[in-house]
Amino acid sequence: MKIKGKHYFTIWYNDKEDNVCIIDQTKLPFSFEIKKLNTYEDGFNAIKSMLVRGAPLIGATAAYSLFLAAKDNEDPDHIIKKIEHIKTARPTAVNLAWATDRIAKSFDRKDIKNSILKECKKICEEDIKISEDIGVEGLKLINSINKDNINILTHCNAGWLATIDWGTATAPIYKARDAGININVWVDETRPRNQGSSLTAYEFQNENINHKIIADNTGGILMQRGMVDICIVGTDRVSKNGDVANKIGTYLKALAAKDNGIPFYVALPSTTYDKKILKGHDIPIEERSDEELKFVTGLDEHDQIKTVNIYPKNSTGLNYGFDITPSDLVTGFITEKGIFKPSELKDVF
Amino acid sequence: MKIKGKHYFTIWYNDKEDNVCIIDQTKLPFSFEIKKLNTYEDGFNAIKSMLVRGAPLIGATAAYSLFLAAKDNEDPDHIIKKIEHIKTARPTAVNLAWATDRIAKSFDRKDIKNSILKECKKICEEDIKISEDIGVEGLKLINSINKDNINILTHCNAGWLATIDWGTATAPIYKARDAGININVWVDETRPRNQGSSLTAYEFQNENINHKIIADNTGGILMQRGMVDICIVGTDRVSKNGDVANKIGTYLKALAAKDNGIPFYVALPSTTYDKKILKGHDIPIEERSDEELKFVTGLDEHDQIKTVNIYPKNSTGLNYGFDITPSDLVTGFITEKGIFKPSELKDVF
Repeated sequence: MKIKGKHYFTIWYNDKEDNVCIIDQTKLPFSFEIKKLNTYEDGFNAIKSMLVRGAPLIGATAAYSLFLAAKDNEDPDHIIKKIEHIKTARPTAVNLAWATDRIAKSFDRKDIKNSILKECKKICEEDIKISEDIGVEGLKLINSINKDNINILTHCNAGWLATIDWGTATAPIYKARDAGININVWVDETRPRNQGSSLTAYEFQNENINHKIIADNTGGILMQRGMVDICIVGTDRVSKNGDVANKIGTYLKALAAKDNGIPFYVALPSTTYDKKILKGHDIPIEERSDEELKFVTGLDEHDQIKTVNIYPKNSTGLNYGFDITPSDLVTGFITEKGIFKPSELKDVF
Repeated sequence: MKIKGKHYFTIWYNDKEDNVCIIDQTKLPFSFEIKKLNTYEDGFNAIKSMLVRGAPLIGATAAYSLFLAAKDNEDPDHIIKKIEHIKTARPTAVNLAWATDRIAKSFDRKDIKNSILKECKKICEEDIKISEDIGVEGLKLINSINKDNINILTHCNAGWLATIDWGTATAPIYKARDAGININVWVDETRPRNQGSSLTAYEFQNENINHKIIADNTGGILMQRGMVDICIVGTDRVSKNGDVANKIGTYLKALAAKDNGIPFYVALPSTTYDKKILKGHDIPIEERSDEELKFVTGLDEHDQIKTVNIYPKNSTGLNYGFDITPSDLVTGFITEKGIFKPSELKDVF
């Protein structure tokens, strides 16, 4: 997708310098900065500090971090240690383990660095194809809504910035735009890190998608008033039975959708489906620092980036990153292979 | 209740200067400032710009605004015009109309100013009594929970800052503290205006109530994990059938409480019950400027109050102030006359 008219991926191999480039997403929407990852530690920190985020992009960055580890030291034991270590960067997204296990299985002990690089590029190419296919499948859903103007609600950023390109929840939206369908997207701002207002709205601005940002509290009354036709969200991990771990607050929107008879879809690349975990509540939920709640960044009156503390002094918070949406609240999963009910996933993937 | 150890009400008649004092709540939690209201316009603007907020306090401020109008001009027609005008300051809270109608019925045409002032003081005294009685009733509920540590979730600020003293949803909390019960309160930060983190947490800091601030998205997983024993919220207006208009996002918490079998109570002073409106969706819902979403205020690194714009340039938002929680999601109403089911309200009040 494009930023200021120029096409980008979220991560790419920079052959001139033999390193890896990412977009520093902690700086968006106020500043567009490309960051070079030169070492394994750079990659690990990019994931942990959320310079990159979103399950598919976390997976790709983990893979590239192993390439950077191999650049430093081609000893297989070194790589195997790093494969275990990078899984600790963030616990919830299954793509991290998926991508690194894939590197573990595929690397060529006689040509470690180059074989890992090849696999990283393959992971990215496949991810783009998966996202675009999710877009094609999701477009069918949007097409089936018989209205002149279709209102879609999404939570957090499951956009192209969360993948390599296209996005998961946003791929159907971009495909609908390309098909000339009139859409408006309600973008949950998604506290505490505001990925909705900072990233999803930023993507949509750059790609000319009609949207309005809403407080996370607002989706309920919009649904009560018939102002939402469909919800499409992403996911960090889906358990065997179809329970969905996704950004904190997703569950509340799924409850409201059910209560108002509004279809609630989860865009699911097969790489995010974890058959090894039977139920959603067995998925580890990351607890992050309450500083993410306390400190808010924006532009001051001089257009300078500024961070302010919004809490009373000495107040503390609790900051879980994700929640679990039970499968019975999910109308269906939009996957690269088609649209499936929760109970069908285990037989398809 | 106390601020920095000193007892305050949220509004009071200042006999030395024959005017009215309020706490400017837009400045909290960063700066404690008392503002003097000298004219009707001062009172109107204090309500409209949310220097005061919360249904009972809006009612009292509207009444005092009519006193200020009478100070300027004791012509009954002037007062009657202002009674109609002040109802336009904010549409959702019914206490505004309730308090001004009470002034309309009670003022003495031979001694307008003094008779209105007398009624204003009476409204405030009664409100304090109502809030405290809600506390006594709510304490019985909290007492009935058989746990060493009781976790209460609340949304927005239905604290003493929303009333004259005690609060509605917080009155049972203060009474539980006084009774020596171990409690922890999960304080929804309550975007976009953060009344939870700015006001409720500020109250609790000053009154030594254990609490943690959470993003509005977080209540769901806390309930899924058994970390909430009871929800207590306030309300801006309850319709005849027991539907609840309250701060945007309340409905989502009520859905989650129902889904997890957690009792969901609404603290309801009788002054906030509107028998004239049959169903919740007939209650007018205020739409406010999206600047409340875009701009966030806090302290910068030099402890200076600073406002930042958190949105991408040119992005816009939609900002409804309230939503409707259907009566079937409400376990009960904590009123000054006891605890009642939604269906019982119409026979009690």
